[in-house]
Amino acid sequence: MTRTGVLLVSCPDQPGIVAAVTTFVAAHGGNVVDLQQHTDPSDGAFFQRVQFELTAEAAAGLAAAFAPVATSYQMGWRLRFTDERPRLALLASTEPHCLQDLLNRWRTGELAAEVAVVISNHPDHAELAAWFGVPYHHLPVIDGDRKAQEGSLQVALQAAEVELVVLARYMQVLSPDFCGTWEHRMINIHHSFLPAFQGARPYHQAHDRGVKLIGVTAHYATAALDEGPIIDQDVLRVTHRDDIDDLRRKGRDLEEAVLARAVRAHVTHHVLVYGNKTVVFDD
Amino acid sequence: MTRTGVLLVSCPDQPGIVAAVTTFVAAHGGNVVDLQQHTDPSDGAFFQRVQFELTAEAAAGLAAAFAPVATSYQMGWRLRFTDERPRLALLASTEPHCLQDLLNRWRTGELAAEVAVVISNHPDHAELAAWFGVPYHHLPVIDGDRKAQEGSLQVALQAAEVELVVLARYMQVLSPDFCGTWEHRMINIHHSFLPAFQGARPYHQAHDRGVKLIGVTAHYATAALDEGPIIDQDVLRVTHRDDIDDLRRKGRDLEEAVLARAVRAHVTHHVLVYGNKTVVFDD
Amino acid sequence: MTRTGVLLVSCPDQPGIVAAVTTFVAAHGGNVVDLQQHTDPSDGAFFQRVQFELTAEAAAGLAAAFAPVATSYQMGWRLRFTDERPRLALLASTEPHCLQDLLNRWRTGELAAEVAVVISNHPDHAELAAWFGVPYHHLPVIDGDRKAQEGSLQVALQAAEVELVVLARYMQVLSPDFCGTWEHRMINIHHSFLPAFQGARPYHQAHDRGVKLIGVTAHYATAALDEGPIIDQDVLRVTHRDDIDDLRRKGRDLEEAVLARAVRAHVTHHVLVYGNKTVVFDD
Amino acid sequence: MTRTGVLLVSCPDQPGIVAAVTTFVAAHGGNVVDLQQHTDPSDGAFFQRVQFELTAEAAAGLAAAFAPVATSYQMGWRLRFTDERPRLALLASTEPHCLQDLLNRWRTGELAAEVAVVISNHPDHAELAAWFGVPYHHLPVIDGDRKAQEGSLQVALQAAEVELVVLARYMQVLSPDFCGTWEHRMINIHHSFLPAFQGARPYHQAHDRGVKLIGVTAHYATAALDEGPIIDQDVLRVTHRDDIDDLRRKGRDLEEAVLARAVRAHVTHHVLVYGNKTVVFDD
Repeated sequence: MTRTGVLLVSCPDQPGIVAAVTTFVAAHGGNVVDLQQHTDPSDGAFFQRVQFELTAEAAAGLAAAFAPVATSYQMGWRLRFTDERPRLALLASTEPHCLQDLLNRWRTGELAAEVAVVISNHPDHAELAAWFGVPYHHLPVIDGDRKAQEGSLQVALQAAEVELVVLARYMQVLSPDFCGTWEHRMINIHHSFLPAFQGARPYHQAHDRGVKLIGVTAHYATAALDEGPIIDQDVLRVTHRDDIDDLRRKGRDLEEAVLARAVRAHVTHHVLVYGNKTVVFDD
Repeated sequence: MTRTGVLLVSCPDQPGIVAAVTTFVAAHGGNVVDLQQHTDPSDGAFFQRVQFELTAEAAAGLAAAFAPVATSYQMGWRLRFTDERPRLALLASTEPHCLQDLLNRWRTGELAAEVAVVISNHPDHAELAAWFGVPYHHLPVIDGDRKAQEGSLQVALQAAEVELVVLARYMQVLSPDFCGTWEHRMINIHHSFLPAFQGARPYHQAHDRGVKLIGVTAHYATAALDEGPIIDQDVLRVTHRDDIDDLRRKGRDLEEAVLARAVRAHVTHHVLVYGNKTVVFDD
Repeated sequence: MTRTGVLLVSCPDQPGIVAAVTTFVAAHGGNVVDLQQHTDPSDGAFFQRVQFELTAEAAAGLAAAFAPVATSYQMGWRLRFTDERPRLALLASTEPHCLQDLLNRWRTGELAAEVAVVISNHPDHAELAAWFGVPYHHLPVIDGDRKAQEGSLQVALQAAEVELVVLARYMQVLSPDFCGTWEHRMINIHHSFLPAFQGARPYHQAHDRGVKLIGVTAHYATAALDEGPIIDQDVLRVTHRDDIDDLRRKGRDLEEAVLARAVRAHVTHHVLVYGNKTVVFDD
Repeated sequence: MTRTGVLLVSCPDQPGIVAAVTTFVAAHGGNVVDLQQHTDPSDGAFFQRVQFELTAEAAAGLAAAFAPVATSYQMGWRLRFTDERPRLALLASTEPHCLQDLLNRWRTGELAAEVAVVISNHPDHAELAAWFGVPYHHLPVIDGDRKAQEGSLQVALQAAEVELVVLARYMQVLSPDFCGTWEHRMINIHHSFLPAFQGARPYHQAHDRGVKLIGVTAHYATAALDEGPIIDQDVLRVTHRDDIDDLRRKGRDLEEAVLARAVRAHVTHHVLVYGNKTVVFDD
């Protein structure tokens, strides 16, 4: 049986890293099917993604075998196999479109991940989740006690053994502690071309400024609101004819598309975070 | 002989405006070849552009004849004929690309305007302007006296009977007085997707933030730097592979394209400013 | 009570048409909120779309009142009110994505139309249609008798009082007779940038040719396969990395988007067909 | 002194190629700064681009040292150093825009190549070439003798020691022999989204068909007109408002941009041809 492994590596640059990694892969009978590498000359940082096929036996001990190589090059690294499907939690408030879009992609087999749970601070999406056969948790904020709600959320995520949290238009502000727990494992979709129009009601802000394009941004959520590492962005053209409802309508399609692309990039192990930026290798 | 007129109108909305204007045009033997109209329901503002063909005789007295119609609807309005070519000044500092691009478009007949003069605070573009046969003024800032330089600039613009000033990568900050004189008649190209990355070195700012798209914005220059009414914007995709020189290189093409589109929209009378926004009718 | 009317007009060009139509609207107390006009100078054809608000009383007799105006200018014309929602049939074969997308848009209220019925030559989408509460007809081709199946289809469409047929990835070839019956009232989505890659398996054709962009086209279906008037098209970038499954996956999003835009343009009365082309007014 | 080398490799896939190549580079003291690799699973073809820095001494003997590695893996390969600037010939007929654009990019240092000569079958561009200081050959077709003109062209290209021929809107059909001589070393820009609208007057064809996007294609010229391997393509949106002159005007900008991108990809050694397709690695 053949398995496909993905090795993501970052370390200080020096000659010989690519040779060391690919020689290691070859020595374990792996055949490289995709290799991408990036060096940032400004700070001498080295990044690499290698995808390779090998036997199940060879795959079994690979991580242990790689550890010494990693150590000798001071690597941060991650080894994953494509047959291990990451478990996702989809969080949404009232707007259903991003949630529905991701559930559709999952149902049709496009999304290389498991939707483990859908969570909302509203009851609205129970029927939808039921149709897709996914557990639904309604976790309202009661008496304004956000901390309690966040506690319930954390419990639900852990119970579902979630690896990636997707804020699919989830409009609750999350605490720095919570964001820290899910650092680089929680993706948010913000409906502006960040860093323009941070904060609330970005389509209103865009309309007021009279921009000729509106945008959306998928980024890792951090304690600093809307300032986390950007994974993907896109824009579409608007005109003076578009009122705020038009921006919302047109924006929905873009939000779905960009969030889906970012989630895909993450669950197929194409993203490396460094500082407040990302390296997103080609899919 | 047939002439083509363009009437741009803005006024408070009320029933009958389109009928009044088009009946006026028809009464003078004009044939409407393009009509676009926009109503902003949020504040009841009405905007219209009518393009029509008529005889030279009918054209001669048209403005005078329209005045009472305009008064009765409280219109702001502008009547222009396409055989009157607006006179432009192109201002550039050291970077030649936007200047060169506009001169090329003028030379090949694409630009429906006259390039009356090229002005720079540097001597760099003298040879280029000479090749195109356009007068070149080198107006340096001497001993840091920006006010004096701006005075010379104003004189040069008036001497050349300029109607539109194009800041084709002109990197001098202009005084509020100067901006006021040229209000809605001076177009700037800023190399970011405004309102993101206002001010200096926007490509550096974009690189630092790790955005996945870079943009450019053409806008009317106002006293408030980079905050004037936006005419056009566009973006292009960048990745972690692109360093600042790559952003500059890719951005140049976009700066040329967006500035050229904005100038074209202005000189063909497709732009109406209201508040800090624009209505840009389809070309 | 205020209603919103849309008048679509095409006729030979002559001076005074816009004035005649807008004067007519004003005379019935209508307030023009959007007017777009196009003249094709190559053949002197005139096209106009006027959207206006007026009282329900004024709306009642408007069509009858307009008839003489239309006659005097030899107009083809259509008058519709935005509170009359066109009834749609959605036809799909096995692929669910376009169907699901349109149903979602309808459910969230984005689509200004009624989904009257979902029809397929396969049983696959019954559960989906049921969830949305839309009648589902499974009309298989039995013993290869396409004519019989087409007859059942025609009956079902008439029974549901359908005004527009949407071929949302419906892979059955339809007879010239059927296409004639639904001329300019049946929209197809073809997964190529027509006229490139007509016919079967366009993504395979695109992959074989090594194109760097793939496209999709929404058009009115006609007897000549893939040659009807184009309503909308779009493309996305692909590379040598994309195999046919990648093209299919990326293409799905584009198919949904372009079909939805075309259906929207039609049901909001923004499309005029002339010859084998369309005038699509700005939304 | 440090030099930068680029090694382009294609061969049948097998385990260990990347390791072999990168180990070779490391053994010669090279530091990999960019590595991209592609495997086509449909036919087991392997493609790789490695960019690396090394000393001038190490660079000197590198090609000879690599030959045995190449042989053992049955590689087609090319080794180039970025300080060797490819010599280009720019060929144009009457339209100047692509020619001018490439000359500008060369003058400003953006183009990593030498413009060795400008050649036209018309006298039109002599003044332009002179201003840029590039030799200009006017090689007209005399008495319809295309073969003689092509002979002169071949002589001129060889005399100028040209490595890449750029057909920058050169409207003469070239013989199969000539195309064979310059196989994969001659880039043409065709003003349609190939394979749509092959042959003459593609903007007229596009206008007649009523497409909603127009495109351009840069490809290696082959004996089969407009059917060579595609390097890059792009499109822009048009509407019913655009007549053929509008398509030409809008298309010019796109032709310049896409041709410039394709030439850049070639002269920076990012393109591998296989069959009738290309692998274009990321820039």
